[in-house]
Amino acid sequence: MDFKISKRYFYNALSTVARAISANSPLPALSGIKIEVLENEIVLTASDSFISIQKRLIKENEEFRLDIFETGAIVIEAKYILEIVRKIDSDEIHIELIDGSLTKISGSFAEFNINGTKAIDYPVIDFSKPDNRFNIDAGTLLKIINQTAFATSDKETRPVLTGVNFKKEGSNLECVATDSYRLARKVVNLNDTGDFNITIPAKALTEIAKSIERESNIEVCVSDKKVQFWIDHVVVQSRLIDGIYPETNRLIPVEFNYELVVDARDMLNAIDRASFIKSDGISIIRLTASENEVVISTKSQEVGSSKEKLTAISYKGQPLEISFSGRYVSDAIKALTGPIVKIEFGGDMKPFVLQPTDDESIIQLVLPVRTYS
Amino acid sequence: MDFKISKRYFYNALSTVARAISANSPLPALSGIKIEVLENEIVLTASDSFISIQKRLIKENEEFRLDIFETGAIVIEAKYILEIVRKIDSDEIHIELIDGSLTKISGSFAEFNINGTKAIDYPVIDFSKPDNRFNIDAGTLLKIINQTAFATSDKETRPVLTGVNFKKEGSNLECVATDSYRLARKVVNLNDTGDFNITIPAKALTEIAKSIERESNIEVCVSDKKVQFWIDHVVVQSRLIDGIYPETNRLIPVEFNYELVVDARDMLNAIDRASFIKSDGISIIRLTASENEVVISTKSQEVGSSKEKLTAISYKGQPLEISFSGRYVSDAIKALTGPIVKIEFGGDMKPFVLQPTDDESIIQLVLPVRTYS
Repeated sequence: MDFKISKRYFYNALSTVARAISANSPLPALSGIKIEVLENEIVLTASDSFISIQKRLIKENEEFRLDIFETGAIVIEAKYILEIVRKIDSDEIHIELIDGSLTKISGSFAEFNINGTKAIDYPVIDFSKPDNRFNIDAGTLLKIINQTAFATSDKETRPVLTGVNFKKEGSNLECVATDSYRLARKVVNLNDTGDFNITIPAKALTEIAKSIERESNIEVCVSDKKVQFWIDHVVVQSRLIDGIYPETNRLIPVEFNYELVVDARDMLNAIDRASFIKSDGISIIRLTASENEVVISTKSQEVGSSKEKLTAISYKGQPLEISFSGRYVSDAIKALTGPIVKIEFGGDMKPFVLQPTDDESIIQLVLPVRTYS
Repeated sequence: MDFKISKRYFYNALSTVARAISANSPLPALSGIKIEVLENEIVLTASDSFISIQKRLIKENEEFRLDIFETGAIVIEAKYILEIVRKIDSDEIHIELIDGSLTKISGSFAEFNINGTKAIDYPVIDFSKPDNRFNIDAGTLLKIINQTAFATSDKETRPVLTGVNFKKEGSNLECVATDSYRLARKVVNLNDTGDFNITIPAKALTEIAKSIERESNIEVCVSDKKVQFWIDHVVVQSRLIDGIYPETNRLIPVEFNYELVVDARDMLNAIDRASFIKSDGISIIRLTASENEVVISTKSQEVGSSKEKLTAISYKGQPLEISFSGRYVSDAIKALTGPIVKIEFGGDMKPFVLQPTDDESIIQLVLPVRTYS
């Protein structure tokens, strides 16, 4: 193995694949990045055995300034190769396998000899493409991820809730996340056909969100075991979460008795101001709404209380008093991204839904909290 | 107690004094800020019982927009008052003691009722001014702190080494810090007379560094128990560390056999590049110098090795091989702040000194490390 390459592009490629590596890897070899040098390209692979990322640097692309003198492969500890390539003292870097798994990495005056691991000791990762495929533009996928993934559960008690459920029926893709106290649902239309019902780990989705550039088109390939996201010369692959995802559509109420419309920023700021007043570590916000006045308040035996008049755009319905987790409602409003939020309530102990006034495709549901005051 | 004040100035003043508060305070009352409202000023006090900071906001200063309706005092948990004042929805804030220790803090639409602590339960802190005083400009004091405090010990085994020794004899102020593996000494000239020999905790000095603005003049007042730094309407006071500070001047060698002059940035970058190669968690750098070549190298059984040719400005002396802690030499070079560094060696197992070529007032000493290679 012996090649030269642009430091900048090589560093970016290493950083991209390194996202798959997790701090507590099950296999020691998985803390490394596999560098395979072929006739006309370099293939970088990293994995934590659940999520795997592969990137190809092709010789054709002149920006890479890739010169291949000898093919071969090696695995090098990610943190070392990233550190060296980032800090090396030249624009071009030279990497050469010199003896067994000892790899020389050199710039102008600096030279490193790093103990690698033989490529044969790296687990085989199957990147073959499943047949069920669809295309999605990067912006749409990013929006799906940002509007749903935060609402997944971080507890392993019900593994299926740690992922986002992607259900495709015809041209309709429905993406749902819930931790059973709140729920986010995004619906988009796709041109491709081919149905599926899979649950993708939230962690994989947040890694994918980091790998996408806004402009690109993404091919998604799905089997019942894995999902692949092909973004230019990068593939991000994740194993799926086993188990049946709960039927959630019946949980979303369709009839409401109260409707509050507010400026998203005003509501977020008011919740933010009140949120340091916590009871048992959680900030419970009380909303008191009538056609005359909308008030956000909090109370804690220990700290004290807060009260703030909210300038609502409109309120329809009888007077209402309802309590909820400040964080859940903040998360939901931030995910909606719209400037104006419509919040619809069924009653003081019924789940309520939040939507932007200008986008029907997204809905956030939050369960209220019972308080004794 | 009842007053109105500019949110911005009040927040800045609260932040300044809050620096004295430590997360694990010995007394519960010390997690709060004492707010005393007098006829013509507000006095804010915070302390961790070792370091105390007091700031006065005087009515005379029109920028503060201070309106005092009723005098009084209260102690409010620092994190709550900071959070409220930072986020409140108006430029002016109104603070009023309403019942016992319940304090109302209000903006335009938002209002907080916070449980405070009675001012009488706050420990009495003596801010009286000792007689031994001198003046120093902020830039000089800042330089003393930045060039020495990092070299103090973080171990409590020899408490006196956790502080910087300030020894004044006539117009000469000598400031020394050492953790017994390295030493920093800064000497400055002062106009004022009055001798002393005190050791100030490094922690107090770093807090002071944050409180000073470059332009100001600082009055320092010293007794054998405490030191005070008066910066405009702020006083930062610290207890001193008991115990005799070791005589260090005889530790600094005056004769050398080898002299290396290098660009500070080049040397820092070379050490930085090599530093990820660690043995037992420490990066040991080997310097091999002769009149022909200067090389920085590292080696670790586990990771591998590095080697880098350094473009030295000059080297005088026989060939030399010496090993040292990369972090200690980096810290020393950064503290010197000069663009060119002169490093003088007595031999491969003798302490060596680093100085900028353009500043005699500062000297950094580092002990070499024995290696077996």
